Amino acid sequence: MSALIKPDPKLDLVLERIVDVPRELVWKAWTTPEHLKHWFCPKPWSVTECEIDLRRGGIFRTVMRSPEGEEFPNLGCYLDIIPNELLVFTDALLPGYRPSEKPFFTATLQLFEQGKGTRYVATALHRDPDGRKQHEDMGFHDGWGTVVDQMVAHIKATM
Amino acid sequence: MSALIKPDPKLDLVLERIVDVPRELVWKAWTTPEHLKHWFCPKPWSVTECEIDLRRGGIFRTVMRSPEGEEFPNLGCYLDIIPNELLVFTDALLPGYRPSEKPFFTATLQLFEQGKGTRYVATALHRDPDGRKQHEDMGFHDGWGTVVDQMVAHIKATM
Repeated sequence: MSALIKPDPKLDLVLERIVDVPRELVWKAWTTPEHLKHWFCPKPWSVTECEIDLRRGGIFRTVMRSPEGEEFPNLGCYLDIIPNELLVFTDALLPGYRPSEKPFFTATLQLFEQGKGTRYVATALHRDPDGRKQHEDMGFHDGWGTVVDQMVAHIKATM
Repeated sequence: MSALIKPDPKLDLVLERIVDVPRELVWKAWTTPEHLKHWFCPKPWSVTECEIDLRRGGIFRTVMRSPEGEEFPNLGCYLDIIPNELLVFTDALLPGYRPSEKPFFTATLQLFEQGKGTRYVATALHRDPDGRKQHEDMGFHDGWGTVVDQMVAHIKATM
């Protein structure tokens, strides 16, 4: 990861896992709407829309639907993209780098080869301790952990 | 400029000028603290500190001082850097891409060769019409225009 990205335990949340699928497939699962929609939200929630323009400043948009049918849009852009290694995106900036109205976090995904599998490190960077706590209370660890399991299952079943 | 950056007249402010100095020197004036401090703020205001790490996610920090001695810090990071052509930075993200507490605008600087001079296009992207109006009321056009004159004078005198 870029030395410029420095997670701070007081502000940020980190999920690290070893998964038994190659990082090229993890990358593909994260950067292809048709794949991402199948695993990106803990079931029984679902992803009903996904838009990806995999360029710096390009759109990353999803819509998440609750079991009751309520929809929650997420809109942001990519900041850094190193295929199979590093993905950085934020909701603090809209596509084209325009500041957003509701900035919440910047996410980084780092992938490292680990034998035939992948060391998967996902980080959420917040602007203050309240942002970190809010994300933790929303179920960061369970949620982000569950979607890794869903992603691995999806990769094994279809890719 | 990246096709992804799309100024919107309702939200954004644009200053375009032709200046009779080469764009390589404009680039140097914008990206070297020792040069930037001499022209970046309309006199009699001054720039008392400037920190530049010219990488994506790298710090861009200045402190501006009023004639009465009050100091105003500005902190953000670079988003895109194409030497002599395009510079994009924002205060919506701190160095290392962490969301900031007081996002206000993203700025782009585009430089085009024009004979022996440079077409200089500076844009401020805001999140909403209020942000645009606030920036306009702060004196965007006069201020950003004045600093171009100061920059050209500085380049001619010292570079």
